Amino acid sequence: MKPVHPTPITWHFAERAAHMQSSFIREILKITQRPEIISFAGGLPSSDTFPVAEMKAAFDKVLTDSGKVALQYGPTDGFPPLRAWIADSLSTAGCTIAPEQVLMTSGSQQALDLIGKVLIDEGSRVLVETPSYLGALQAFSVYRPVFASVATDEHGLVPASIEPVIDGARMLYALPNFQNPTGRSLSVERRAELVDTCARHNLPLIEDDPYGALSYKGEPFPKMLNMNPGGVIYMGSFSKVLTPGIRLGYVVAPLPLLRRLELAKQAADLHTAQLTQMAVHEVIKDGFLERHIPTIRTLYANQCQAMLDAMAQCFPAGVSWTRPEGGMFIWVTLPPHIDAMQLLDQAIAARVAFVPGAPFYANQPATNTLRLSFVTVSPARIREGIAILGKLIAALV
Amino acid sequence: MKPVHPTPITWHFAERAAHMQSSFIREILKITQRPEIISFAGGLPSSDTFPVAEMKAAFDKVLTDSGKVALQYGPTDGFPPLRAWIADSLSTAGCTIAPEQVLMTSGSQQALDLIGKVLIDEGSRVLVETPSYLGALQAFSVYRPVFASVATDEHGLVPASIEPVIDGARMLYALPNFQNPTGRSLSVERRAELVDTCARHNLPLIEDDPYGALSYKGEPFPKMLNMNPGGVIYMGSFSKVLTPGIRLGYVVAPLPLLRRLELAKQAADLHTAQLTQMAVHEVIKDGFLERHIPTIRTLYANQCQAMLDAMAQCFPAGVSWTRPEGGMFIWVTLPPHIDAMQLLDQAIAARVAFVPGAPFYANQPATNTLRLSFVTVSPARIREGIAILGKLIAALV
Repeated sequence: MKPVHPTPITWHFAERAAHMQSSFIREILKITQRPEIISFAGGLPSSDTFPVAEMKAAFDKVLTDSGKVALQYGPTDGFPPLRAWIADSLSTAGCTIAPEQVLMTSGSQQALDLIGKVLIDEGSRVLVETPSYLGALQAFSVYRPVFASVATDEHGLVPASIEPVIDGARMLYALPNFQNPTGRSLSVERRAELVDTCARHNLPLIEDDPYGALSYKGEPFPKMLNMNPGGVIYMGSFSKVLTPGIRLGYVVAPLPLLRRLELAKQAADLHTAQLTQMAVHEVIKDGFLERHIPTIRTLYANQCQAMLDAMAQCFPAGVSWTRPEGGMFIWVTLPPHIDAMQLLDQAIAARVAFVPGAPFYANQPATNTLRLSFVTVSPARIREGIAILGKLIAALV
Repeated sequence: MKPVHPTPITWHFAERAAHMQSSFIREILKITQRPEIISFAGGLPSSDTFPVAEMKAAFDKVLTDSGKVALQYGPTDGFPPLRAWIADSLSTAGCTIAPEQVLMTSGSQQALDLIGKVLIDEGSRVLVETPSYLGALQAFSVYRPVFASVATDEHGLVPASIEPVIDGARMLYALPNFQNPTGRSLSVERRAELVDTCARHNLPLIEDDPYGALSYKGEPFPKMLNMNPGGVIYMGSFSKVLTPGIRLGYVVAPLPLLRRLELAKQAADLHTAQLTQMAVHEVIKDGFLERHIPTIRTLYANQCQAMLDAMAQCFPAGVSWTRPEGGMFIWVTLPPHIDAMQLLDQAIAARVAFVPGAPFYANQPATNTLRLSFVTVSPARIREGIAILGKLIAALV
């Protein structure tokens, strides 16, 4: 059959679509996935940590025992035993989380989209850290908020800095544990203060926690969720403790909000794959993560230390950086006159890659910052790459 | 740790969230999944058709051969060999579809959400069939369009009826093959006319095609995509020909639109599970669907015929219904004074369920309509259920 109308359509996109931009990181990754490049640009966990054998056994068991159920449509809110497992894992002596408060999502990125959909009108004020997680800025931007960037320091977000912008705001988005991109964590004292401030001002506080389990010392921070389960929206993910490619995350919220998020999810993709949820539950239900996560921590801690050591040796005076106690990232601040975007061009020519810091700022980017990931690079390659980067920076200082 | 603020938050939802409603069908399904109910309400495919053994073998092979890749983050647009397979399956002698035009989605429901996100501003006019697919109305409603319902008859959508509402409209959404909810198909002549009308008016035409392969005679209708690949957005799904619980669908669009849909997907959930895409590709790459789909067609055709025969025998004069040649649904029109919602209450009391037709209308619902699905019910139970329904209707005529 011959096409009847070879003239292409002139598209009239929705206004929100005019603002969409590809993640700068994903663009960089296309360049830097060549094997000759030493890439500190990735945000991927190390595939060496993926429990392939356990996942294979679990998919096999679920399809053998419950194939027809696993492959049929399922409930929008998720597979009940997995929701119960998550609720239990988040409950503390003083604060019980109910399974009904848990909504399974297609990665925690989907939770960001659903939260934006349900809480953000065009022009709504949304408070974010300085800098903040790029994927959250992208997800929320679709709904066209006005971002207010709140101050941070080496102890994370500064609670007092939200007071001037809090009234009328729709939510505060925070990533308190080993933050992407800075690797910093919010101090315990500040958590209580932040929860208190948000509660007094009726401001929903989003606690995004993909890295919390990756504390190198093995001691997790207390969750703000447990300090005020009626006002905190908690997001978790299996991407960093199990595997990311299965796209499985969750959001925990007070019931009035959770019901709206569930309706939004029903319209967005009906539900997250039953088979995946059942297989993950099969893997984790008997304590697997307690044995598995320490192996990830050890790997990342060693590579983080290798990078910190190399930086101390190779980076010139005038450069500073964070010293994370968990997670996947180190944040570097160059002398103010050095533009990390220009440094990236030189670095790629010298076969080293990183992510410039500017895209992580909702407002007024600090162009002299950059993010380094150490999790997918061996200590030897880390030393080699940091030495190259050190020389390039030294030439610019 | 004791929660510091037991006072729950007062929520301020986005305006779009105030309009969200739970799918009436999913609410009915909660009631009608009790085993004693003969349910014609479902929209689920029959799990007897799921190729559990083939899926199990495929997951096993993918995890054995490529576990670390399958479990890692993947590209937003999808697994390249699967995109190529889909493009090839949609290409005809006169019209080649490129793999770059294919975006993998988390079920075709997600394609509806992404299309709405990219093409609908608040107040945009969106043309839909009368009645239309409820899941599409739900997905688009999030973006707050104004729906214009265009006329349909026994040959599907009436192309001339779009002319009065076409100027300034953002898109036309059509489900031309064995439509949900009516089971009707758009005639071949009308397809060409519809494509021509939309092209002349620069109106994007969405061709949603989850059921096209389920033609009982085995002869698929020509796709509007192949009549004008520059103006038609095609949606497909593995839910009805393989299994729905894995949540795997796709959208095929001209490149300028596809790039926007890809950006929207990146913000919505990064990508659809690699493992699932690789396993499905493993199952279908060597012609499995050509052997498998005829077994689904035969099952559904037999059950459809059992229902049509039972209706002819048991339904009183004054009731009319469609005679589908494929798909999963029969549409019933009762005498105008009978409200299908009230009939449903009586039917559930008599242990039979169906879906009232009203929620499928974007405007001016016909309250005397209902949808029957025959795919998950045996012929004996179909006869039993239709006999009960016939008596209830006869008492109301």
